[in-house]
This record gives sequence, structure tokens and C-alpha cells, in this order.
Amino acid sequence: MRQSKLLVTTLREAPAEAETASHQLLLRAGYIRMLAAGIYTYLPLGRRVLRKIENIVREEMELTGAQEVLLPSMLPAELWKESERYEVYGKDLIKLQDRHEREFVLGPTHEEVITALVRGEISSYRRLPVTLYQIQTKFRDERRPRSGLLRAREFLMKDAYSFDTDWEGLDAAYVLMYEAYQRIFARCGLHFKAVQANAGAIGGEGENHEFMALSDIGEDTIAVCSACDYAANLEQAEVNRPAAAVHADLAERAAMEKFHTPGLRTIAQLEEQLQIKPEGIIKTLIYEGDGKAFAVLVRGDHEVNEIKVAKAIGVNEVSLADYSDVLAAAGVESGYVGPVGLQLPLVIDAAVAAMAEGIAGAGEKDYHLRSVVPGRDFPLEHVADLRNAVEGEACPKCGNGVLHFHQGIEIGHVFKLGTKYSEKLGATYLDASGRSKPMIMGCYGIGVSRLLAAVAEQSRDDEGLIWPESLAPYRVHILQMSAKDTEQTALAEELYGELTRQGIETLLDDRDERAGVKFKDAGLIGIPVVLVVGKSAGERKIEYWDRRSNAKEVISSAEALSRIIAAHRK
Amino acid sequence: MRQSKLLVTTLREAPAEAETASHQLLLRAGYIRMLAAGIYTYLPLGRRVLRKIENIVREEMELTGAQEVLLPSMLPAELWKESERYEVYGKDLIKLQDRHEREFVLGPTHEEVITALVRGEISSYRRLPVTLYQIQTKFRDERRPRSGLLRAREFLMKDAYSFDTDWEGLDAAYVLMYEAYQRIFARCGLHFKAVQANAGAIGGEGENHEFMALSDIGEDTIAVCSACDYAANLEQAEVNRPAAAVHADLAERAAMEKFHTPGLRTIAQLEEQLQIKPEGIIKTLIYEGDGKAFAVLVRGDHEVNEIKVAKAIGVNEVSLADYSDVLAAAGVESGYVGPVGLQLPLVIDAAVAAMAEGIAGAGEKDYHLRSVVPGRDFPLEHVADLRNAVEGEACPKCGNGVLHFHQGIEIGHVFKLGTKYSEKLGATYLDASGRSKPMIMGCYGIGVSRLLAAVAEQSRDDEGLIWPESLAPYRVHILQMSAKDTEQTALAEELYGELTRQGIETLLDDRDERAGVKFKDAGLIGIPVVLVVGKSAGERKIEYWDRRSNAKEVISSAEALSRIIAAHRK
Repeated sequence: MRQSKLLVTTLREAPAEAETASHQLLLRAGYIRMLAAGIYTYLPLGRRVLRKIENIVREEMELTGAQEVLLPSMLPAELWKESERYEVYGKDLIKLQDRHEREFVLGPTHEEVITALVRGEISSYRRLPVTLYQIQTKFRDERRPRSGLLRAREFLMKDAYSFDTDWEGLDAAYVLMYEAYQRIFARCGLHFKAVQANAGAIGGEGENHEFMALSDIGEDTIAVCSACDYAANLEQAEVNRPAAAVHADLAERAAMEKFHTPGLRTIAQLEEQLQIKPEGIIKTLIYEGDGKAFAVLVRGDHEVNEIKVAKAIGVNEVSLADYSDVLAAAGVESGYVGPVGLQLPLVIDAAVAAMAEGIAGAGEKDYHLRSVVPGRDFPLEHVADLRNAVEGEACPKCGNGVLHFHQGIEIGHVFKLGTKYSEKLGATYLDASGRSKPMIMGCYGIGVSRLLAAVAEQSRDDEGLIWPESLAPYRVHILQMSAKDTEQTALAEELYGELTRQGIETLLDDRDERAGVKFKDAGLIGIPVVLVVGKSAGERKIEYWDRRSNAKEVISSAEALSRIIAAHRK
Repeated sequence: MRQSKLLVTTLREAPAEAETASHQLLLRAGYIRMLAAGIYTYLPLGRRVLRKIENIVREEMELTGAQEVLLPSMLPAELWKESERYEVYGKDLIKLQDRHEREFVLGPTHEEVITALVRGEISSYRRLPVTLYQIQTKFRDERRPRSGLLRAREFLMKDAYSFDTDWEGLDAAYVLMYEAYQRIFARCGLHFKAVQANAGAIGGEGENHEFMALSDIGEDTIAVCSACDYAANLEQAEVNRPAAAVHADLAERAAMEKFHTPGLRTIAQLEEQLQIKPEGIIKTLIYEGDGKAFAVLVRGDHEVNEIKVAKAIGVNEVSLADYSDVLAAAGVESGYVGPVGLQLPLVIDAAVAAMAEGIAGAGEKDYHLRSVVPGRDFPLEHVADLRNAVEGEACPKCGNGVLHFHQGIEIGHVFKLGTKYSEKLGATYLDASGRSKPMIMGCYGIGVSRLLAAVAEQSRDDEGLIWPESLAPYRVHILQMSAKDTEQTALAEELYGELTRQGIETLLDDRDERAGVKFKDAGLIGIPVVLVVGKSAGERKIEYWDRRSNAKEVISSAEALSRIIAAHRK
């Protein structure tokens, strides 16, 4: 392709709305353009990268034996009502009516449609298992679209769904998909981790893993063991539960004592003003779940993990009570709430249960209690793991390593859905003895367009993007320094012709622009090998610029060709 | 692929809503399923065919130098208001609001988006021309979705847009695209015609051609010359205008005479009851356009072409007045309206103007007039070509051949848009002397999913579908007659393995089903070469079934392999 013909306009500055590096560079280098918040056009360079990702995903899906389908985007609302997600999904779900006022949604995911499809196609165990996938546009009306393709409202996904007769079959399908994901992300040149994760709105209680591209701008925190292979989303990461404390001396311990703490409502204030260590404080937080208030107790140096709390009390979601609700439920303003004498159910983190004694709110404005003994001064009826893991603590799996934290961008997710959808939508099969059973499902997603941005986020430098070979829009970028120099034209055209004949995708910068502009644009666009045809063209010498190492060396054009062709054949 | 694993369920009967053969067969053979009216899922077989069409389209687009982009489906309504199509498009346009109540439409076509994109990217003549294309899902809320993929509400299209500095450039882009379309449809094995067409709602006054797949179920009628290359949509087909009649003897001709025609309101009734030939009758029809009524005069044996009428009077659309409106406008009920003394503008077809005399409504209930002389008894002020061509009449281009009529399915359309969108949306460039000018645009569409159905409609027999090599979901279908026969298993697996190693896509029917079921399904599915591994497997003999000719012959498995491999290498 000749750059003079290519629809690529590089920008000196990124538009103000672009905050992350990948978003800025994809805009500046002319890969994407915003049409509306969270809605993007792919220009020719961006489309080429997207297509390469699609091809890798498709190849690896086919290798697992998954079969490609294409489901619609306009989905009858009834299906979503059947699965009970029409309301649950909230405002992220885009709803519309057709000309006859029939209700539809734009598919943000396709569990309902695929389950309804398979229930119509398959009725016998003999036609299972089957795994279906598609690469398709999804719609999700994000409250706050951001970071370009990383959190968009219209985006490209690969979604796959497996259907099995038993859990062993699901396990096998899951492993196949998990391994395919490892290969896909490796082929895309990503640094990533597969981590244990929480199911979220998609539901199902089964095992699931997220694939996280490691990046400081990632919105997820993941905990990774320094010694074993344990890695989990912080939302999900278990913690080593301390051995239940044995307090044989309960009776001999000092009695509780109230003390005056005017205006000291936070852990930080108690620490600063009274030199009390946070790990010696019992933090009492009022939550609501399913319309009922309850208290969660964690140590002062720990954070409540709301997903764990919700699981512990068996509801979908919990939320922290606001000031007035705390006052109404606990009879005292927040900051002075404590477990002693509190007329609310107590849900207690294991680390609190293990404390010999601690300081807690007194349930009375401007007072705290010291020498509060768990199990003596308040009951230890409901103890569970309710807190986030803390960086540096021991690994919950091996116990030897310690947990390190990383930020990650979720690029893939594999789920054991089980029978959640097959039961709701009636996707059953007859087993060998003629009994009707629900199919056992898994679902497996990759954010194809998000993956593009994740690679851009990881693979760049001050000059611009640096694509891995596998995804680069072109493999070689020839820069002809002077468009009017006949020797340069001859050599540049010769190289361009030869590479093209070899089937190596090449972009030739034949524009009548200054050398500085061409270097700057090549740096931004990020094709991995750049050949600079300049003053030494008459001696058949060019500069070979390895965009990854940024090493530049002057070599003969023949040497450059043979290097590139050799690398291409590998 | 092993058929025992493939998600394909054949149906004995097509669902009642399927009327056309392609729709019935694509459903019965397990290529597609309906999710809602006009909204379809592509099952694995259908997805494979669709992908082959996409690949052919993409290859041919790349050969023209067009660059692939991907535009969003969710489009801000403002853009459509800028182009003034937001209202014009009517109920076919699917409208929605996001969570912030901002208005969007689901793109049925992308002139607005691409024009707005290019106006932002290109400002100088030096970066033109450029042609961009995409393969993408479109949404059009058809009033009456029908014939499966032929008239769907969600469908796959290839749309391309060219941007030039001058009309010669547009002509060149148009020819490139026209020729690419010829190659695409030929590669898909279609019988088709490129015909002159009407621009319709997409607008623009320029030249445009439709590509029509010939088929009895096509909703378009096309007129094709028996001698020259003339072919036009009937909507658009010109007719040879008769030489203006010279009626020197106007004064000597018989005077008009009123006669009684009680209850004879139609041409057919006049012909039947009074033996009046239709070509001797002047038909007077009341139309409305832009809120005004007027009369259209055509010969009794001719049909009004509403598109020609609208063009002749300079409005977007005209519609036939209903009974009460005719009465109000003409003062007499329809059937007796005539041009003599009528207080409405007359728009007269050239064939009427050329009549020496004729019979017309008298403008009075139950009466007609005979010996009505055009130009004497009513004025010939507005004469134009207003009628549909008639099968068998002389070609308007060469005059030698006669017109034959065919039915066609529109599968592609190429348009010279000119500056309609670039002016409305401000897509201008600076020419070499620094003057700002609107870009000259063309647009070029192919109904990718409709094309699939058009091929199915053309290529089938009583047993089922018959795919051309280029689009077949698999190239070879091996039927193993008995799943339990070890000799058959050995030979079927050997053939399957060898073909797969050769890169020839093969479907192996390894199901434990009766031979009759396998033959029936193979007939339905329509893979072009079927190898039947049956009783002669021990002698390494198979039946070679050419699905196109339906010839079956027993040959050695080696001979079958070498035939298939030789054909594949061509």
C-alpha cells in the first residue's frame, strides 16, 4: 500500500477526551476515530489490526472444534424476560421498539439466544457435546464509556458457548477453551495472567477465570502468588483464615472500658490522635442487602469485600448504608457504631474473630470501647472470609509465597455456567435412558476490540505504538526520504515490489513530505520494521530501523530483504 | 468435520412462513433459523457460506484498491438530521435513545457516517481519490419482512464509498466497482444482469446500475434487449417515444360523441362488453404529488410508471388518489374520469399524444366519449414518457431488438451520488489553487446475506440446494452408509483423512442413521460432490455423486480422490 493513498491522518495532539496512552496513540496514529461517546470507527490501519486479531481467534477456536455461527444483534425482549435478565441488566441494556411496537434489545451478550437456539436444534444426548462461537458486534450502554476501545458502548466480541451432558464434559470444554485463550493472547503478544474471578451479572456459581492483560491503567486488581501459580481477581481472592483463637482466659480478661473520643470517627483519626494501631480496631460497617440492614465487622486495617459479604449472606448484591440509614438502623451516627449490644445481625470477618481484644465504637456518640473481646462481648455466630486480601500477605493456596498486586485489563473470561440458562429457558436433552435433563453450559468471551487497545497499551514507547509481528497492520514500512529523488524512488519501489511479491504486507511512504514528518509518523504508526531509503540509496544502502529495540543500522538493501524474508518464513 | 458433531438439524417440512424455495431449503437444510420476523441466526453451514461470500467480496474490493474500514451501527441521530434523511427514511429507520436520552439510529446505510468521517480526515486534493468499504450488519425495519434473507430487517452488507475531486474520477471509480461486481457475482456462480436503475430514497441524480440475480421470485422486473446490451429496471426503462403525430386533418375529423357505458368502469369491462381494444382507449388516472392532484393520461394497454411521473412533475413521490379523492378532485367517480374539460393539470404519456383519436371517460357517471382527439379536445401541454415499457416492444437503445422481461432479485447497486452528501455535510477539499470544493461521491452496495439466498434460489433442484464450488460450505460430502461396518469405516476415514490433509474441506456423515436419511440430508445440504461409501467398500469402490448433474457412478476410491484433488488445484 502506498501511504499517499492510505486513509491515515496522524494528529499532533490527541483529543482532550483521550486519557489513556493507548486511546491517545490509536487516535493520533490514525487507527480509530470517535463517532459518539464509546462508539468508534476503525480506519484502515485499525481495521487491519482488528482483522488479524479476528483471524487468530478464529483459527484457535476452530482448533478446539468449536463451530462458528452468527447470531442477530436485535433480540426479542421476551427472551430476556424468560431468563429474568431484562430488568437485572439495568440501563446497560439498550432497549428499542420496532415499527409494530414490539420490544427488542441490542445484544450485550448472547446466552439467551444461543440457549434458545440449541433447545430447538438438539434433543438427544447423542448430539452433545457441542461448542458454538461467533465474532460479533455487542452493545452495552456503559454509564461512563472511557479509555477508547477499553470501555466502549459498541464493541467487537468473540463469544462461545458449550453444551454438555455432564459436568466432566463441561470441565473438558472449559480446559480446551482455557488453553485456546492462553494461545490466543500469547499469539497477540500480550503479557497476561489467568486469574480466578467472580461471576458477576452473568451469573452461575461455577468456576470461572478472567484473563487479564497486565497494565497500570487496568481497572481490576489481581493478586498473584510469588511462589505458586495462584492468581485471582482481588474481588475473588481468598485469604488465609487465621486459626480460630482459643480464648480460655475469657473470664480473666480485663472488662470493657468506655473512653471519650470526641470527633474521632475514622480509623485514621483514631490512629493519628490516640496512636491506636488500625489492626487493633474492630471496624463496624452497616450494610443493606435484600432490603435488610446488618453489620459487617472487619479489622481496622482491612477492606470489606462486598462480593464475599453478599455470598456469605446469600444475596445478589449488598450496599453500604448512607449516613441517615446508619443512624436509623444502629441508633448512632457512623463512626461510633460498635458490635456490643447492637440490635442488628453481625457478619464477622475471620480476622476479627481471631482478635484477643480490640477497640470498637461504643454505640454512643463521641465514645469508643477498649478491651472488647470477640465472643465475650458480642457473639461469634456468623464468621466468614469477608475482606480483601492485602498485598504481602501469605498465599491462600500454597501458604509459602506472598501475594503481589497488579492492575489488569480484562480481555477474556471463561465461565462454568452450569444449568442456569438451560433450566430457565428449557434447554433439555434426553439421556440414554430417555430421561429429560438440562444441558450443562459454559460460556467464554474475548473482547476482540478491547484486546486491540490492551496490546496498544502494553506495546508502545514515547514515539508511538509498536505492534507485535502477528498484529501489525503491515509488516514493513518503507520510508522514502525524498519523494523527488530518482535514486531513492528506484530503490524504494524495488524494495516495495519485491516485498509485495513475497506476500509481505508493506506500506510505502511515498508522500511528498519532509523527512522529519515521515519519521514521526512511522514512529507513531508502529510497524515493527522500518526501512529508511535516503541519501545512500545510490549505493543500495538503507537504514534498518527495528521499531521494537529502536536500534537503527545502515545495511545493504539485499541484506534487509533477506532478513525480512527469513523472518517472514519462520 | 464429522456430521455427528456438526450443529445441523434437517427438517422434513419447512415452517409455514417460508414461501420461497430458497427460504424453505435454507431452513430445512439447517443453514439458518428465524429468531424474529426478518431476523435470522446463521447456523454453522450458513455461516460458512456467508464467510465464503465475504472473502470473495473482500478479495475483489482489495483488488480495486478500496480500503476496508469498520463503521459503527449506533449512529447519532444528528448526522441523519444534517443530511435531512432522519424524517425522509420513515419507519424503516430504527430509532433509539441511550441512557442519557440522546437519540440514535441503527444504520441502514452509511453515507452520512462515511461523509462525516472523510470531511474530518481529508482536506486537500492531494489525498483524493479514496474508496472505502466495509462488510457490516445493517438494520432496516421493513414493513413486511419476507422470503427469509431476501428481505430481512437485520442483514449483512458490503458498502463502499468513493471520494473524488472531479466527475472523471468518479466515472473511473464507478467503472472499477462495476467490474468488481461483475467478477464477484460471477465467482458466486450467479446468473445476473446489470441494469440501469432508479436512485430511490438514497438520492442523487447520477447514473446508477442495479445488479439483478435472475429469478422468478424476484420483486423487480427488468427489461432486456434481444439484440444489444440494453438492460434496465422496468421502473427506469425508457421507451421509444413515437414520432409526434402530425394531425393536419384535425378540423376534418369526426367530432367527439358521448355514449352510454353504465357500469363499465374498467378497461377490461370496456373491452369485454363493447369489444373496444385497449390501445384505443385513453386512460385518465388521478394522482397526488406534493399535496396537489393532477391527471395522468396513458393508453389503455399501458401501465403508469410512477417514478417517471414523479420525475416529470419534479416531486419525490406520487401516489394514486383513492376513490373519495378522485371524486373530490375530478367531480366524477373513477372509471368515468376523462381529460376533456377536466379542471386539473394533465400530464400526458407520449403514446397518448401520438393517438389520432381515442375513447375516454366523459367526466360524467356512466358515460364515455368516442372520437376524442388529443390536441383538439384537450391540450397537449405536458407530454412525457410516463409509462412502463411493454414486453416485446422495440429496444429504446438500439431500436433493432425487442425487449424481453425477467424477474430479478437486487443483489448489488452502484450509484454516482455526486455532491448530494458532501454538500449537505460539508465534505470539501481545497483544490490545487486553494479553492474549496465539495467532494464527488459514489456509493456501492452488495447485499451479502441476500446474495446467499439468491444463490440458493437459483441453484437447487427437487432434492435440495446445490452450491457452486466457490460457496459450498464443504467441497466434499462423504456418506458412510453403515456406521457399524468396519470396511466402510476404514475406507470412509481414509478418504476423509486424505482430503483433509489436502486442505479440501470435507464433511463426513458418520452418523448412526439409515442410508435413506443420509441420502436425503446430503441432497438437501447440497455439497457439490458426494462420495457414497457402501457395500463395495471392501473392493475400495465408492459411488461418486455429482450433485449438480445428479449423475452417479461407481469408481475406485483412488479415482475419486484424484478427480477431486485435480479439480481443487485448478
